Amino acid sequence: MTDRTRSRSGGRSARQAARAAHVLERQAYLTRTMKPFEVMTDEGLEIIEANADRLMTEVGLEIHDDYAIDLFRQAGATVDGTRVRFDPGMCRSIVQATAPAQYTQHARNPINSVEIGGMNTVFAPNYGSPFVRDKIGGRRYATIEDFNNFVKLTYMNPYLHHSGGTVCEPVDLPVNKRHLDMVYAHIRYSDKPFMGSVTASERAQDSVDMARIGFGGDLADRTVITSLINANSPMSWDSTMLGAARVYAENNQACIMTPFILSGAMAPVTPAAVATQTLAESLVGMAFCQLVRPGAPVIFGSFASSMSMQSGAPTFGTPEPALVLYTVGALARRLGVPFRSGGSLTASKTADAQAAYESANTLQPTIMGGVNFVLHAAGWLEGGLAIGYEKFILDADQLGMMSTFVKGIDLTPNGQAIDAMLANPPGQHFLGTEHTLANFETAFYRSTTANNDSFEQWFEEGSVEAEAGATQRWQTMLAEYEPPAIDDAVDAELQAFIATRKAASPDSNV
Amino acid sequence: MTDRTRSRSGGRSARQAARAAHVLERQAYLTRTMKPFEVMTDEGLEIIEANADRLMTEVGLEIHDDYAIDLFRQAGATVDGTRVRFDPGMCRSIVQATAPAQYTQHARNPINSVEIGGMNTVFAPNYGSPFVRDKIGGRRYATIEDFNNFVKLTYMNPYLHHSGGTVCEPVDLPVNKRHLDMVYAHIRYSDKPFMGSVTASERAQDSVDMARIGFGGDLADRTVITSLINANSPMSWDSTMLGAARVYAENNQACIMTPFILSGAMAPVTPAAVATQTLAESLVGMAFCQLVRPGAPVIFGSFASSMSMQSGAPTFGTPEPALVLYTVGALARRLGVPFRSGGSLTASKTADAQAAYESANTLQPTIMGGVNFVLHAAGWLEGGLAIGYEKFILDADQLGMMSTFVKGIDLTPNGQAIDAMLANPPGQHFLGTEHTLANFETAFYRSTTANNDSFEQWFEEGSVEAEAGATQRWQTMLAEYEPPAIDDAVDAELQAFIATRKAASPDSNV
Repeated sequence: MTDRTRSRSGGRSARQAARAAHVLERQAYLTRTMKPFEVMTDEGLEIIEANADRLMTEVGLEIHDDYAIDLFRQAGATVDGTRVRFDPGMCRSIVQATAPAQYTQHARNPINSVEIGGMNTVFAPNYGSPFVRDKIGGRRYATIEDFNNFVKLTYMNPYLHHSGGTVCEPVDLPVNKRHLDMVYAHIRYSDKPFMGSVTASERAQDSVDMARIGFGGDLADRTVITSLINANSPMSWDSTMLGAARVYAENNQACIMTPFILSGAMAPVTPAAVATQTLAESLVGMAFCQLVRPGAPVIFGSFASSMSMQSGAPTFGTPEPALVLYTVGALARRLGVPFRSGGSLTASKTADAQAAYESANTLQPTIMGGVNFVLHAAGWLEGGLAIGYEKFILDADQLGMMSTFVKGIDLTPNGQAIDAMLANPPGQHFLGTEHTLANFETAFYRSTTANNDSFEQWFEEGSVEAEAGATQRWQTMLAEYEPPAIDDAVDAELQAFIATRKAASPDSNV
Repeated sequence: MTDRTRSRSGGRSARQAARAAHVLERQAYLTRTMKPFEVMTDEGLEIIEANADRLMTEVGLEIHDDYAIDLFRQAGATVDGTRVRFDPGMCRSIVQATAPAQYTQHARNPINSVEIGGMNTVFAPNYGSPFVRDKIGGRRYATIEDFNNFVKLTYMNPYLHHSGGTVCEPVDLPVNKRHLDMVYAHIRYSDKPFMGSVTASERAQDSVDMARIGFGGDLADRTVITSLINANSPMSWDSTMLGAARVYAENNQACIMTPFILSGAMAPVTPAAVATQTLAESLVGMAFCQLVRPGAPVIFGSFASSMSMQSGAPTFGTPEPALVLYTVGALARRLGVPFRSGGSLTASKTADAQAAYESANTLQPTIMGGVNFVLHAAGWLEGGLAIGYEKFILDADQLGMMSTFVKGIDLTPNGQAIDAMLANPPGQHFLGTEHTLANFETAFYRSTTANNDSFEQWFEEGSVEAEAGATQRWQTMLAEYEPPAIDDAVDAELQAFIATRKAASPDSNV
């Protein structure tokens, strides 16, 4: 068993000891050992960078936020109403002057703190889906119970390093208050790092205030939240997103400044153009955060999909977004900031072969392209409209495979195994040799979802396909879930804060 | 429509013209534009090479073929009964002296000839399965009708470059004669390049003789067959395989010298050991072909799977075989010969999510690792025990995606699209812009299998998942199939040859 499962007996302390032992075995985040795959030469990347500069200088961006406009003007930008233009290299200089190449996002449990940037990769689950699907109940609107369930499943899975943010939208709660329940769930039902609310600046502030309580009353300037700030592509940032980003930056919390681009709609159809515009938009967003507070952690974000020529629907797992990912990843490395992209994306409605092909076609570039922060790493369906319980289980198993892959080839004497081969006569199998027996337990990644039985055995056991086979797993995990420890006073203070904030205004769905 | 579909009316010449036009659009093989991904340093690869030399020198190989033993002895190997030992570097020197780095495999239709080696990738379908599966009929033994069907489907698919060999085993035909019907199908129902029989030297000779007839009576020393020769791992070659390889090499036909290694059984469990042993075994096989006929085309083959620790069953799409593939690919490049590995491998029984994840996890390294010849690129199920009609259709769509991916990023002015972006105001979408309209038709790879509809539309249309959705496609393709042109006299001569050979011996199932 690779997940944190534990005996139901033995008392609380025994269970906590077992849990701690398990936690210590897992890696808090991936550290890749191989250089990222490159699809473009330095000369090509320089062309993209020069074109991005032309966009920022000649077109400029619409900035619908007075505070941001002021900051940009003071920094030397040319302001014409809401249109802000930047001299070539200006935003790059601002970002490179103060943005960290890598930062620590502290978790409530220090062993779960993650390093974001460099050769590291952090997996976070699905984000933002209003619907959920499971194989038994089908598709329905998501609720706070679903939200809590996915926080718990993420907490229990060793290959998800980060609790994420709006894992799904709890649409049974009022829009103006649901962030309180979401942040509470991340703090109470998990002790992995998490994301905050971005739908209004005061909700961002609530997120920071709750984190402060959850971390014992003082953040001591530590970064404990990484949040998702989306551009209004093409070439526009709105006040909601910049207002949330400001709160986080002022508090030294991290922002992922992400152009969300459906090629052909929010940008031209070509991968080079999507990469160019992504660079321009994200640079302006990251520069804003650095102007708010020099040194506040920022992530260069990119979300790019292709499009169905028949319907205009977004499509995933196709070659063009992979090419964009590899290119933007290289641009981020040249800039010297962490990079967010990728995930396990698909347009499929169920966890069928289409879903798996498309997700794998996204996850492979995610790893090979050196992505540092991976949102939507597990659960995504329907272009993000739904999160699937079974899809989550199947995706998480793939994340485990990547954890093994990035370690590369073991060239120690045991890894070379030359003595074992020299001692083995031709034609004789290795199943019972000393080297095999010594390494058998840890030799291969153990999939928690693949069925490797013979056809006959599989048939006799009901011909269960992958999605159906994953149902029992999430049900078992939820049944076995136990929350991480939390100080009772901290929990009480969090609940009191939530009660106060909920009482301060009437329910609203905007 | 990306496949060769054509009107049912208009007469034979109109149909042939339409077919020709379609054929001209497709690429006969892929040419990658990016350097392969490397998982190991040169120093690491040198360790593997030195260890392989030690295996060949100190352990040696069992060679169960008198002719091969004589050849190796004359070339300087140390022979002790059937055990043959090679001085360090001996096999490498023999291979590097005469084996071509790249060769042309001529097709009956010259526009389908392929270049094997260098930056090229050639996709061939599944090989060797005794069972077939389709979503309607389920799983059953394969027949010659299934075989012919897959030859036809491969012929019609633009992303499969090669007709393959034993696409499935026609178990309704006697073992000692079925090769005649298989080779006939490749020549008659397709005009793409193909593979010959390897189960006996006289069947290899039949394959060469039929190819000679099919190509108009004289091969003029051209390579028109590439065949699969498997080692008896660990460290052994048998007379059946070497006998077939000898026939092909003598006739300047190509052989893929392939150790088939289930890690932990035919080699130690570690990726470094599997790569080492693969190198040693394949080097000896390739050296044999060069001794038979210097300059005969050879391919460095590798098939490596991991293993279930629970059952000992082979497993696919896991990280360890991917690491082996990347490593052996680098070894092949250092040696300077074409490389065969990869495919769309899975242990799953159906074309479900497991099948797709595992296949994608194999196909991505296939492309990123620079494989030159890809067997099992479409159709594989159950660890190779079955070929699936729907799996074939779904895999082939993925091959199309790879065809787009390897072209990389377009940095022409149209690809950069800087003028389109400079002319577009912030906040305004690109759907109707001149650049989008000019590029829309060709901007994105068009999947032939992905469902990108909304949930509601998909639900109303019957909630069809990927495997079920592929059924109609193969049925339509087979219904629309028309054979390529062949000279009536050539066809008659082929049939006469087959009749003579079938009459020459009684049916046998060995």
